[in-house]
Amino acid sequence: MNYSMVLYIVGWILNFEAGFMLLPGLVSVIYQEKAGLTFLAAIAIALAFGIPLVIRKPKNKDFYMKEGFVSVALSWIVMSIVGAIPFMLSGAITNPVSAFFETVSGFTTTGASVLSDVESLPRCILFWRSFTHWIGGMGVLVFIMAVLPLSGGRNINLLKAESPGPSVNKMTPRLRTTAAALYKIYIVMTILEIIFLLIGKMPLFDALTLTFGTAGTGGFGVKNDSLASYSPYLQNVVTIFMISFGVNFNVYFLIWMKKPLEALKCEEIRYYFGIIAASIATIFIHIRSFYETTEEALRHAAFQVGSIITTTGYATTDFNLWSEVPQTILVMLMFIGACAGSTGGGIKVSRLVILLKTIKKELYQIIHPSSVKKIKMDGHLVQHEVVRATNVFLILYVIIFALSVLLVGFDGHDLVTNFTGVASALNNIGPGLQLVGPMGNFGVFSSGAQFVLSLDMLAGRLELFPLLVLFMPKTWKKF
Amino acid sequence: MNYSMVLYIVGWILNFEAGFMLLPGLVSVIYQEKAGLTFLAAIAIALAFGIPLVIRKPKNKDFYMKEGFVSVALSWIVMSIVGAIPFMLSGAITNPVSAFFETVSGFTTTGASVLSDVESLPRCILFWRSFTHWIGGMGVLVFIMAVLPLSGGRNINLLKAESPGPSVNKMTPRLRTTAAALYKIYIVMTILEIIFLLIGKMPLFDALTLTFGTAGTGGFGVKNDSLASYSPYLQNVVTIFMISFGVNFNVYFLIWMKKPLEALKCEEIRYYFGIIAASIATIFIHIRSFYETTEEALRHAAFQVGSIITTTGYATTDFNLWSEVPQTILVMLMFIGACAGSTGGGIKVSRLVILLKTIKKELYQIIHPSSVKKIKMDGHLVQHEVVRATNVFLILYVIIFALSVLLVGFDGHDLVTNFTGVASALNNIGPGLQLVGPMGNFGVFSSGAQFVLSLDMLAGRLELFPLLVLFMPKTWKKF
Repeated sequence: MNYSMVLYIVGWILNFEAGFMLLPGLVSVIYQEKAGLTFLAAIAIALAFGIPLVIRKPKNKDFYMKEGFVSVALSWIVMSIVGAIPFMLSGAITNPVSAFFETVSGFTTTGASVLSDVESLPRCILFWRSFTHWIGGMGVLVFIMAVLPLSGGRNINLLKAESPGPSVNKMTPRLRTTAAALYKIYIVMTILEIIFLLIGKMPLFDALTLTFGTAGTGGFGVKNDSLASYSPYLQNVVTIFMISFGVNFNVYFLIWMKKPLEALKCEEIRYYFGIIAASIATIFIHIRSFYETTEEALRHAAFQVGSIITTTGYATTDFNLWSEVPQTILVMLMFIGACAGSTGGGIKVSRLVILLKTIKKELYQIIHPSSVKKIKMDGHLVQHEVVRATNVFLILYVIIFALSVLLVGFDGHDLVTNFTGVASALNNIGPGLQLVGPMGNFGVFSSGAQFVLSLDMLAGRLELFPLLVLFMPKTWKKF
Repeated sequence: MNYSMVLYIVGWILNFEAGFMLLPGLVSVIYQEKAGLTFLAAIAIALAFGIPLVIRKPKNKDFYMKEGFVSVALSWIVMSIVGAIPFMLSGAITNPVSAFFETVSGFTTTGASVLSDVESLPRCILFWRSFTHWIGGMGVLVFIMAVLPLSGGRNINLLKAESPGPSVNKMTPRLRTTAAALYKIYIVMTILEIIFLLIGKMPLFDALTLTFGTAGTGGFGVKNDSLASYSPYLQNVVTIFMISFGVNFNVYFLIWMKKPLEALKCEEIRYYFGIIAASIATIFIHIRSFYETTEEALRHAAFQVGSIITTTGYATTDFNLWSEVPQTILVMLMFIGACAGSTGGGIKVSRLVILLKTIKKELYQIIHPSSVKKIKMDGHLVQHEVVRATNVFLILYVIIFALSVLLVGFDGHDLVTNFTGVASALNNIGPGLQLVGPMGNFGVFSSGAQFVLSLDMLAGRLELFPLLVLFMPKTWKKF
């Protein structure tokens, strides 16, 4: 293990986080809030650790998959601890585990909150809370790669560990250019959403925080009723942007590179929009009679489907009150998640497609045992490695899921709360059903359960493996 | 597709089923019940189709995996349709879908019932209901193979399709001997349980039916409260035999062949008993205060754990009233299931072990990318084919599971009922939680949902693939 390189990266993470915290600091100046001082304290702490770690560039540049996974996992944990400081010092969340939970929830773009009354919080705290979504959405390490010239060609291991989805191989080999392009697309889309929300007469502060939540597919809001009180126009704008941020960024990248034909070939997108359309239609039929007008029913159906499949977690209505079929569809969408290479969470549509193709292949082989059939995606052969990693991902996913439900169960809440609470954390969604439904919050869980759920959120955002590698004793052995 | 061979096998299934039905016929004579006439009718129908199908032995002896899977799937469906006739004609269950559900539940050793009052049924019907467990437990086609000289060496494909668990390769190549040995062990254990129950002063009829249910790990009882009203001694006898029937029969087979050392090497058994011990201990701690004595709490914990992990489904107490942790453990045991090569259902302990080893290997490979690590089981290398099939099994399992929960959800019951109902059907357990808890029944579901659950039970018993192959259009294409 190349400790010096790992610590160097963690150091940069801390320094960048200190930089990011200047923004909520600025907000506190504008609104003249005392809570802004907590950001000064957090910045000081971050830099106190961060600067010494980056003063000397390590000589040993060995950087393999192991180092990549450990750097990413460690960075996210350290980042969340430092990010929790303003919540604690400002008194917004006094329990340190809950503050850690809230920050992890922010960075992992989960959006699950322990707070029941967000409207009473200082604006700078609310801003920071939503801004963590924006930072975590595209990934901090991707950001660092876009900005810093790191150590040569091995950084693919960082990108591999932090980017969602089964494969990043399609990307250009010039990593720094890719990372920068991804961030440019991300920033352009963010600005577009802010403009559209301002056109709909949303206050600037609301527009900024809501957009951060949409862009990162996070879900923290600044109102206790999420988006229920905004106008239909604003709700629809958010629906469209949520779904757009759930699209594989490779597609935008290809369009950016002026290869629209290649972008159209993407199978994942077709499945993604197919699932969205089918879900909206089915839910609309079932909830039509709950609402006064067709427009209202359709708007709520589309918003909730977009919010859940992209794992954003905003709500315009309490879907905990819907009937069984819409609820079951939403729970299934929680697991499917958005596209790979988007800011969304979940298992990812492309993984689902690979899994379905694997099954088809296996069934075909029973009928024609001598035939050799390969799995293709977007017209290309899917490498055996990717198929295997996808299979192992699902297995690991199911096991982590089951264990978490068991551990969280010690709190004694009902099975639906525990099940959908874990589903919500592991898939980085936000709300679940029952006690953790869209109008409830995760404060009902004990500190122990919140800690388990925090690990689930991190495991979900980093796609399981980095966090597990961190906890394996063998990782830390030298030989 | 070799149609003549498939039909020949289905024909034999019908004839054997007619033979099996003589037993409940005999019971009706003893108790002088009119319902016995329904068995005569069913026997006549079975033979009317069965005899013409087996009159000529097919000349085309081609018998590949495809034929094996189709024969098994078709046999089980036909068998269940014919087996449902007595339920319908006797008026015990008037709805044909429900009668089919009950019979499928019997043959697949699920033990989920649509009946709320079994005590009012004629004894011959109750006997048949329990006897289907015994027939289905070891497998009808295995029975046929033990008795009939079929068509040469290709029958491994029948055994592969009907036997539970990832691999039957360890078995002796002399299939007929193996099949016969398995049935001998099965019969000896069945007789032993009957004797132990009779020693505890259980009436003969109860002892027979209960033993059939235990041996097949089924769960149909002859009393409305399952086993709650029997003496502690009788409950403990059933606990021990349930757990014994959940053991991999290869182990008994090796002991039978006087290779006890090889039997001890079986890793699956060690995990199986480890999981049982840990579950009983954890549940005992949580339910201790619910019961008056330590003995009572321990007995109920052991019984319920044995009943659920072996997917039998008997109950001595209403575990629907237990707290969250014991309930969550039971739900997890539902999925784990018994050993491969036993009469139990579920995912199977050996699959779980293979899955865990796959994950361990994958994590190891991240740390040491250049290393080549193979998965071993019982000291032998696990073939790549088996690992892949296990992975695909789990994926398919998860997808069928999710779709079934969605379809069953159209009935509008709560999520826990739907979720545990499907879990119970797909894992061949019997009871779930809430409406389908140990004291509830599956009559709450509509015919449509019962049909979906019937397919789940068949898919679970035949380990997913045979039933899917049956429904694939490509299976039926000639080329």
